[in-house]
Amino acid sequence: MNCLKKLVLVPFCLIFIGQAYTQEHPGIMMTKKNVAAIRKGVNIYPLLKSAYAKVKSSADQALKEPMLVPAPADGGGGYTHEAHKKNYTNILNCGIAYQISGDRKYAAYISAILLKYAAEYEKWPLHPKRKEGEGGRMFWQSLNDFVWQVYTIQGYDMAYDAIQPKDRQTIEKHLFIPIMDFFTKDCKETFDKIHNHGTWDIAAVGMTGYVLHKPEYVEMAINGSDKNGKTGYLAQLNQLFSPDGYYTEGPYYQRYALLPFVIFAKAIYNYQPELHIFNYRNQLLAKAINTSLQLTYTNGAFFPINDAIKDKTYESTEMVYGLDIAYADINPQPDLLDIAERQNTVIISDAGLKIAAAIAAGKAKPFKYTSQWIGDGASGNDGGLGILRYGSNDDQQCLLFKAAAQGMGHVHFDRLNILYYDHGQEVLADYGAARFINIETKGGGGYLPENNTWAKQTVAHNTIVVDQSSAFKANLKDAATYHPDLLAFKANANIQVVSAADDHAYPGVKLVRTTALIKIEGLKKALLLDVFKASSAEQHQYDLPFWYKGNLVDASFKIEAAKDNLKALGTQYGYQHLWLNSQNSIASGKGYVTVLNANNFYTTSFASSIPAALEVKLVSLGANDPQMNLVDSKAFILSQPKAKNQTFVSITENHGSTDPVAEVVTGAAADVTELTVLGANDQLTTVSFKLKGKQYTLRINYTDKNNFIQLTQ
Amino acid sequence: MNCLKKLVLVPFCLIFIGQAYTQEHPGIMMTKKNVAAIRKGVNIYPLLKSAYAKVKSSADQALKEPMLVPAPADGGGGYTHEAHKKNYTNILNCGIAYQISGDRKYAAYISAILLKYAAEYEKWPLHPKRKEGEGGRMFWQSLNDFVWQVYTIQGYDMAYDAIQPKDRQTIEKHLFIPIMDFFTKDCKETFDKIHNHGTWDIAAVGMTGYVLHKPEYVEMAINGSDKNGKTGYLAQLNQLFSPDGYYTEGPYYQRYALLPFVIFAKAIYNYQPELHIFNYRNQLLAKAINTSLQLTYTNGAFFPINDAIKDKTYESTEMVYGLDIAYADINPQPDLLDIAERQNTVIISDAGLKIAAAIAAGKAKPFKYTSQWIGDGASGNDGGLGILRYGSNDDQQCLLFKAAAQGMGHVHFDRLNILYYDHGQEVLADYGAARFINIETKGGGGYLPENNTWAKQTVAHNTIVVDQSSAFKANLKDAATYHPDLLAFKANANIQVVSAADDHAYPGVKLVRTTALIKIEGLKKALLLDVFKASSAEQHQYDLPFWYKGNLVDASFKIEAAKDNLKALGTQYGYQHLWLNSQNSIASGKGYVTVLNANNFYTTSFASSIPAALEVKLVSLGANDPQMNLVDSKAFILSQPKAKNQTFVSITENHGSTDPVAEVVTGAAADVTELTVLGANDQLTTVSFKLKGKQYTLRINYTDKNNFIQLTQ
Repeated sequence: MNCLKKLVLVPFCLIFIGQAYTQEHPGIMMTKKNVAAIRKGVNIYPLLKSAYAKVKSSADQALKEPMLVPAPADGGGGYTHEAHKKNYTNILNCGIAYQISGDRKYAAYISAILLKYAAEYEKWPLHPKRKEGEGGRMFWQSLNDFVWQVYTIQGYDMAYDAIQPKDRQTIEKHLFIPIMDFFTKDCKETFDKIHNHGTWDIAAVGMTGYVLHKPEYVEMAINGSDKNGKTGYLAQLNQLFSPDGYYTEGPYYQRYALLPFVIFAKAIYNYQPELHIFNYRNQLLAKAINTSLQLTYTNGAFFPINDAIKDKTYESTEMVYGLDIAYADINPQPDLLDIAERQNTVIISDAGLKIAAAIAAGKAKPFKYTSQWIGDGASGNDGGLGILRYGSNDDQQCLLFKAAAQGMGHVHFDRLNILYYDHGQEVLADYGAARFINIETKGGGGYLPENNTWAKQTVAHNTIVVDQSSAFKANLKDAATYHPDLLAFKANANIQVVSAADDHAYPGVKLVRTTALIKIEGLKKALLLDVFKASSAEQHQYDLPFWYKGNLVDASFKIEAAKDNLKALGTQYGYQHLWLNSQNSIASGKGYVTVLNANNFYTTSFASSIPAALEVKLVSLGANDPQMNLVDSKAFILSQPKAKNQTFVSITENHGSTDPVAEVVTGAAADVTELTVLGANDQLTTVSFKLKGKQYTLRINYTDKNNFIQLTQ
Repeated sequence: MNCLKKLVLVPFCLIFIGQAYTQEHPGIMMTKKNVAAIRKGVNIYPLLKSAYAKVKSSADQALKEPMLVPAPADGGGGYTHEAHKKNYTNILNCGIAYQISGDRKYAAYISAILLKYAAEYEKWPLHPKRKEGEGGRMFWQSLNDFVWQVYTIQGYDMAYDAIQPKDRQTIEKHLFIPIMDFFTKDCKETFDKIHNHGTWDIAAVGMTGYVLHKPEYVEMAINGSDKNGKTGYLAQLNQLFSPDGYYTEGPYYQRYALLPFVIFAKAIYNYQPELHIFNYRNQLLAKAINTSLQLTYTNGAFFPINDAIKDKTYESTEMVYGLDIAYADINPQPDLLDIAERQNTVIISDAGLKIAAAIAAGKAKPFKYTSQWIGDGASGNDGGLGILRYGSNDDQQCLLFKAAAQGMGHVHFDRLNILYYDHGQEVLADYGAARFINIETKGGGGYLPENNTWAKQTVAHNTIVVDQSSAFKANLKDAATYHPDLLAFKANANIQVVSAADDHAYPGVKLVRTTALIKIEGLKKALLLDVFKASSAEQHQYDLPFWYKGNLVDASFKIEAAKDNLKALGTQYGYQHLWLNSQNSIASGKGYVTVLNANNFYTTSFASSIPAALEVKLVSLGANDPQMNLVDSKAFILSQPKAKNQTFVSITENHGSTDPVAEVVTGAAADVTELTVLGANDQLTTVSFKLKGKQYTLRINYTDKNNFIQLTQ
């Protein structure tokens, strides 16, 4: 992994041994000094009130049901698995309910169930359903054991004062200390891993160390099992996030990894404020939380690059924790409150109180989505993500340009990929992961075989494919060796541009992609310009897919789709999953395709630098998918069968819409016409087009960062 | 057409000649005596205020733009077409703006533009782009000319008092009278047709007759060109609607046809209240409006049976007119106000004032969707539609059972078809029309060739197909000769059932379908039971498609989908458009299919009366579609290759859901198991199944209407 090699050693030395810190319970998300205020707050502030109502109702439900602590037996989704999962949620909810209501019955539940666990835990061997190297004792994978402890220790902390000292002794001696032994010794490899499983392990150990007042555990958690800073929490913070707060596996996993990071940070902040953990690496945690939010479209969904579940939004619990802490403990930006309102809940905590009070006081401002470059890698120089946005949060055009590093096993082979959104919809889409999460009947809810054969392959993305292969031939180790390089990023009002290059995805081929949102006076929406240049000393086939959503309603060429005997387009690198519906030769090398997407018309006008041999292939997904695991997807592919140098230029515009209720169509015809590549070489790409009767010339100067792109009329 | 043959002659004699009626302007949607109140109302009632703001803004825009009255030249969507369409909207808006603001500039616009028309109209020959027999003079089809006049005469009526008498004389003599001549003489065939084009013609002529005080036109409009009641408005009301207010072409066209019916009725009501037009045929118009609303799902969309555009909702203008008049002039049901709120507008009119005032007074109640049988045909006995609903308007299960008559050319060959909705979504869907309405690039925006080859064919629907053919071999004349017959309809609280039979769709085959929503204690949702029985003395292939929305996530059989060389399933009757993805033999004749639809799990458990040879075919749409006109659709087909008598039984249940944000799945497994056909003959079908450990027996007794369906445990 390239992030490991570029380890940034930050001189941040912590002295723990013998250091005393204040010991009060509770002391993590909710602290003793704030309990009275939170108790008041749940009666005053609507968001806190409704959030507490849910917690209390769950806690009350827990008290009604039989207390079950079964010997671990089942895998994910099975009976014992779900029982132990439910128990930690109950413990947390009862802890909160005890603190807020003061009713000792909730604390009694926690005491009783933890005594049950204490009576059983030491008898449990490694889980019978474990896979090699990652088994837990309660759960089939140790990750779930860590998560169990992160939640449970918070519940214990909240009930602490109400549990008999002798019971506390039993619980600690026969449950938590054995768990700590397991997490730090048996699971040492994971504890020392720079990986999100390791983060959960560390957070569990560190938080338990604070609550039980065992500084030894805290120091191991922060500085690694060898206490030398090479592993542990700080090493993870250094290596897993870029200076811009980007997590190397992408937004879906960034959200997931965030929770143990922020919750343990909150514990450190409370117990050892002198460590200024929230200021570490220039407020890295605040950046990570903010960057997570910037990595969403205005509908709240994370950009689904890499192995991502597409419906995931910032409403997820991890982001509620992250946002509450970011606002309350790091930087109270009023636009975070906008997101909190959309999350429609808060954590019942010191932070949740602040958020709910601020919202009730009318302090929320619309979230500030901004166009930006987010650097990847520990140093921030391993490529990154470009985000261009135009328009208000209600109706925003948004382009994501992916020129990030490979970043471990969940990352796809999609160098220089783009995603495009408008009118609240995906316009050019990413497939995300081939996975029906938690749906047992679909490969046990895990990644499906098609995640490797399809979703990770280059052709599944809106980026160039050379010779019907995948970038790095889909080899992770090779891919992790190199990263793309940023050429230019500018976000002026009327021309926003991002450009990056990659020389290694395909041996001997130099790829340079430049995309821009260009606002021209008189048009409501910006135009999406895309200039994709491939250069090589040898001849190659260059394919550029556009994975569109909606229905194709017009094209400059006559479509003659296959009527029967539909064939797969290829045999490997994802091409085996494509049905070739139609193949069209474009004699002029120019043309357009119009798609109707959620009642909006999008026309992509395209032009090739080598006109003669251009083809457009219309494909749909589903070949060689015996279990029918793949979901419907359609693309048009600009294809150059044989060329050394090839530049694909396209302009995608939203030029009109249809109102099916009123049965009225407006702006059905594209505004951009006569798109032409005037010249394309290593230094310059020059393009012309007509728009509403005016002629425009667009020049990209790859060697001049200051005047990278120029539009003249 | 069978509706014509069964003409109900209602003894409703109107005497017009020489009868004087009050002549005041305006006198149609807005009447002189109410103008002052509406003027006040637009300042007081939010809905009237916002509706007027839109009208006035459009009127102001009209005054700013050049007044264009081009000689007709272009077809639908072309320049002159759009210019004349825009003019009638402007005339209506300016009429309203004049009445409400009192500003004569709006009336001056109307006067000026109508004088322009008067100077030109008589010179215009039949439209150059006309098709045989239906050409207009302003537009390529006369229908648009009628629509033009329906709107324009209202604008003229509203500006009447402000137009100079000599100008009125010019406008009437050189525009409206020539138009009347054209509509009643040149277009006599359409005028006398029992068809929605005829309705528009009649409404235009009748309304103009009232406004110009020419009773001759009014009488022709009401009683037909021969004034004998065999044609004209009343004849249309008698023949096009069933006594339950169902329009023979289905909801999509019902909505469209409704506007000229209600607006002309309103004119009759104002000018000749003694005719009690709204009481005609037991308040038929009120029923037609109410029935239109009952023919929607809770998301506002009309059931898309027959040639329907699927996004059409009750927010369309026609339904705003209809609803306003139904509430204001016929029956002020408070639940109509719920729909008005969802429409979020009213007509600036006497009726709109009442609605807006009632809503402002908080009188709205939730719209009462009710389970009901709606008879088809002039007598109401030509089959019909069964609607079963369970649950609140927020989360309603809804089944539409189509056992209606053929009803003219827009009707599909889908005897005994069902549509099923839940959680605001289509679960078992109808394709609707193969048409991208108004999208010029898709067959000029009209019906595509695939409307005949696919959308109308039986296999495109959730109903049985015999021998891979279509009902009546898709011959309209044959289909119109027969209608299905209702066997039973009951809508008790816990078992709602509808059953109908058809003996003619396939010669020698008797089809009986029974569907029910069955609420069992302990389940949140009702079960959808479907029992489809086909009987014949000869052997046939029986196919029963389920056109589902969403993704197939589980099945009782192992799916082995075609990996390459995908083949069309057949060569005609729509089968040529189906890709056969997978064909599975079900040795036991029993099984299930689970679909994930908008995060909800639906399992269809099925069982066949002849177990051995049952097959399940998984198909998707798109073969033999060279222009790629068809939109993505998927089905599983229960197929019995050879049998005389075959009963397909299925239970479809929503048993759980997935929350992709919280990544939690609940109720992933179906509750119904061991569905078995115990017996199936002409008199009885007996079925058993298990649910949550209990055994249930379900008996359908076709000969006992009172105990048609019985469930025992």
